[in-house]
Amino acid sequence: MPLNAVKREIPQSLPGFDVIKPFEGAFENTPLVRKEKGIRNVPKLNKLVETVEQAVLKTELKDGMTISFHHHFRNGDYILNMVLDVIANLGIKNLTLASSSLTDAHSPLVGHIKNGVVTQIYTSGLRGELGEFISNGGMENPVLIHSHGGRARAIETRKISIDVAFLGVPSSDVYGNSNGYTGKSACGSLGYAKVDAEWAKKVVLITDFLVEYPNTPFSIHQDQVDYIVKVDSVGDPNGISTGATRMTKNPRDLLIARNAADVIVSSGYFEDGFSIQTGSGGASLATTKYLRDYMIERNVKASWGLGGITSQMVKLHEEGLITKLLDTQSFDLDAVKSIANNRYHTEISASYYANPLNKGCAVNKLNVVILSALEIDVNFNVNVLTGSDGVLRGASGGHSDTAVGSGLSIIVAPLIRGRTATVVDNVQTIITPGETVDVLVTDRGIAVNPRRQDVLKRLRETTLPLYTIEELRDKAQRVAGTPEKIEFEEKVVALVEYRDGTIIDVVHQVKS
Amino acid sequence: MPLNAVKREIPQSLPGFDVIKPFEGAFENTPLVRKEKGIRNVPKLNKLVETVEQAVLKTELKDGMTISFHHHFRNGDYILNMVLDVIANLGIKNLTLASSSLTDAHSPLVGHIKNGVVTQIYTSGLRGELGEFISNGGMENPVLIHSHGGRARAIETRKISIDVAFLGVPSSDVYGNSNGYTGKSACGSLGYAKVDAEWAKKVVLITDFLVEYPNTPFSIHQDQVDYIVKVDSVGDPNGISTGATRMTKNPRDLLIARNAADVIVSSGYFEDGFSIQTGSGGASLATTKYLRDYMIERNVKASWGLGGITSQMVKLHEEGLITKLLDTQSFDLDAVKSIANNRYHTEISASYYANPLNKGCAVNKLNVVILSALEIDVNFNVNVLTGSDGVLRGASGGHSDTAVGSGLSIIVAPLIRGRTATVVDNVQTIITPGETVDVLVTDRGIAVNPRRQDVLKRLRETTLPLYTIEELRDKAQRVAGTPEKIEFEEKVVALVEYRDGTIIDVVHQVKS
Repeated sequence: MPLNAVKREIPQSLPGFDVIKPFEGAFENTPLVRKEKGIRNVPKLNKLVETVEQAVLKTELKDGMTISFHHHFRNGDYILNMVLDVIANLGIKNLTLASSSLTDAHSPLVGHIKNGVVTQIYTSGLRGELGEFISNGGMENPVLIHSHGGRARAIETRKISIDVAFLGVPSSDVYGNSNGYTGKSACGSLGYAKVDAEWAKKVVLITDFLVEYPNTPFSIHQDQVDYIVKVDSVGDPNGISTGATRMTKNPRDLLIARNAADVIVSSGYFEDGFSIQTGSGGASLATTKYLRDYMIERNVKASWGLGGITSQMVKLHEEGLITKLLDTQSFDLDAVKSIANNRYHTEISASYYANPLNKGCAVNKLNVVILSALEIDVNFNVNVLTGSDGVLRGASGGHSDTAVGSGLSIIVAPLIRGRTATVVDNVQTIITPGETVDVLVTDRGIAVNPRRQDVLKRLRETTLPLYTIEELRDKAQRVAGTPEKIEFEEKVVALVEYRDGTIIDVVHQVKS
Repeated sequence: MPLNAVKREIPQSLPGFDVIKPFEGAFENTPLVRKEKGIRNVPKLNKLVETVEQAVLKTELKDGMTISFHHHFRNGDYILNMVLDVIANLGIKNLTLASSSLTDAHSPLVGHIKNGVVTQIYTSGLRGELGEFISNGGMENPVLIHSHGGRARAIETRKISIDVAFLGVPSSDVYGNSNGYTGKSACGSLGYAKVDAEWAKKVVLITDFLVEYPNTPFSIHQDQVDYIVKVDSVGDPNGISTGATRMTKNPRDLLIARNAADVIVSSGYFEDGFSIQTGSGGASLATTKYLRDYMIERNVKASWGLGGITSQMVKLHEEGLITKLLDTQSFDLDAVKSIANNRYHTEISASYYANPLNKGCAVNKLNVVILSALEIDVNFNVNVLTGSDGVLRGASGGHSDTAVGSGLSIIVAPLIRGRTATVVDNVQTIITPGETVDVLVTDRGIAVNPRRQDVLKRLRETTLPLYTIEELRDKAQRVAGTPEKIEFEEKVVALVEYRDGTIIDVVHQVKS
């Protein structure tokens, strides 16, 4: 019988074991544990690399691979442009870019599409110069627009297989334990990035704040991380988050908000222990304010708030009106401070938040969501992606995820925006299907989806200004006229994926 | 061009997309989101099942599959016996049992081996009636003994593929968010269970404390959990954890501890910011006490403590002497309270703790570890598994993981235990290879592994009683005599796996 490295006889076969591999020494088969001349106290694994270029080289990124980024740094993000410049300089081409979303900060991406570095894009949204470029047919392959939950689903089911994730983090230690609320570039939750860190084959962290090991509590953890690069700055703090999301003083938004709060209170969903998500738009934020008054007046507390967390939600949490917060993205500095300090303000991944095919996501347990819209049509389909000129200037986000998951989905929007009707016959682009939208609240009236007779019945017992959606459309058209039909080219510039992976709509090239 | 369910034209092919599947309705491809007569507010996913039997049936557990359990409930565990009884009643056979470890609570497993329900076992350790049974040749297939890090490696590399994990949790909500420190059966960290929850195909939680959604902060999270069963009790609180690990008053242990503390202080590793893991044995715990005195006296603070966390480590943490704690297993109620309340006492998974093949485990960054031994030989090989009669009565645990990962691994043991020498020519069973053991501290002298001339040189500058390991062996033999050679049968009853997956030793059937 052969002897192993510690001179023990190891049988070559035994019942129940196909392969028996004898011990060869403590360091032979553990490449990350280094041995040097019998002295074991040497750096066992050095993840720190000097530059982004070195990190890219170490990941062995090649033509045709898929790279990913998160958008927690929003308009302040430096990471995506920084990394793509390096990749372009290295001559790597034909990459698929799988960002959680793209913002105004990412206009330089246009150059990297033109030079063939990026040839396919998956994202929740895009806007600004990049949106114009794509809408004008700048890419051969259409962009795939996904929801936050849809992206998590695609990654976890390997429809999107990320070769290298480049994740900006506000703080990290030398082993990769990192969180989003420490450092000068604090962004709060790293909920989108958590999915990439878990699933990408290689993970590169880029930080401007290297802290002592172990950087606990951590969001992304060391066993997920390959390389770490320290740079001067990961982003512009002013673009990453504002101090506190300001409350609107726009009377129209306040009117919508009051109506929305009244709808919630009368809907049957306003009871002790309810749960809620609100957006960051003016009317949505103001709804929280009016709802707060009702909660205090009627002694109704929410058990949890979800989302996109804002200073308004944090305020209610700290007042004891919302017991717990589940946070996949922190919208302002108050939310960042709260996730750092409040025990029951918990970071959740985008999969936990909204992946429709995992073992149960948070939106499925949500009672009420308040969402915005660029357009909504008589079938209650909602567009939050393309502007009135047909150009890409928005994001799918958690819109369709929360609409279908929640018990009561409320769209808040002005009846007319600028000189354009919000309620139309057919929205330009469907992000959220009407069968999952329950109530539309505008400044000129409220419409309930006929599928929700239960809600309609309750609201009829109030003095709220109820109309059919067709009546609201007519009202809008009387003021704003019938919107002129936008002309499009044949070419498809974007596919809109529903959260389950099917295609709910396409966006065509605009006529120039 | 075909129309999808919201009447949009969806092309059947587009550049960059192989398959384009048109939207079929919001509920068609998301099985967990239920629709009922147009009213969406119905329970969307019910994970609660009435009995363990129903849970087993729902998981579709079949003959030949692999099931797993954790040992955080230690000697108080009711879960494993409860589940195996149900499985046996259902007539399911030939299962592989992949427990993180097995304790005295698991003697009834003997019956389920005899009746063919369990035919293969992977575990960190076993003892008591079960150990006797296995050592006497009760199973056809040898048991595989793994380290905590080795188990995580095996699971993450799919050498162990868990079909169904049955995880007892002290608290859970109806969606499966659960933690270890709430409820009457609190056990603290769920570090071993986290690996199973992440990798098992099906996850069943068993709890005696169902709390309001969302049960945050969570260890195991809802997107990992399939079914939840509420039972009267998951374990005996007295067996799960003692109030506080008591400090030894045994003068021999105190002598060993003082020597061990002196070794650490003189080793070169005792400097501000060092890191340490201690075991829960008497001498190891007492070392912490002496080390504390030195830390205060010399104003040296540890940056982090790892492990198996005890009340002694918690005390140092709360005194500010250890900045952070990383906890894969909480040994006593003080540790449970601390992980619940102390912001920088962080739960880590067994993979984070010690998996040698992930992207970096905590043991790799450890400076000092204090470990116990049943036997140690002149090559510094350590046995913590088989007793002086050759019978299985221990566990591999994190012994070999921390020994190789740490900068300085110290074994503390009495020179003679009962009437048996601890220092021998050849240990019965090798768990930790000598090349990863640096110093042996006994009550009768200290031996440094000749590989560590650097440590030896430093210790020679002290008055510590230094000997060669052969001299310590001779001392032991002079008092206790040469140990009688135990007779074994040919049959192999256990394979001892090193953390990298190779076989470092085998255990034979004892002669009856």
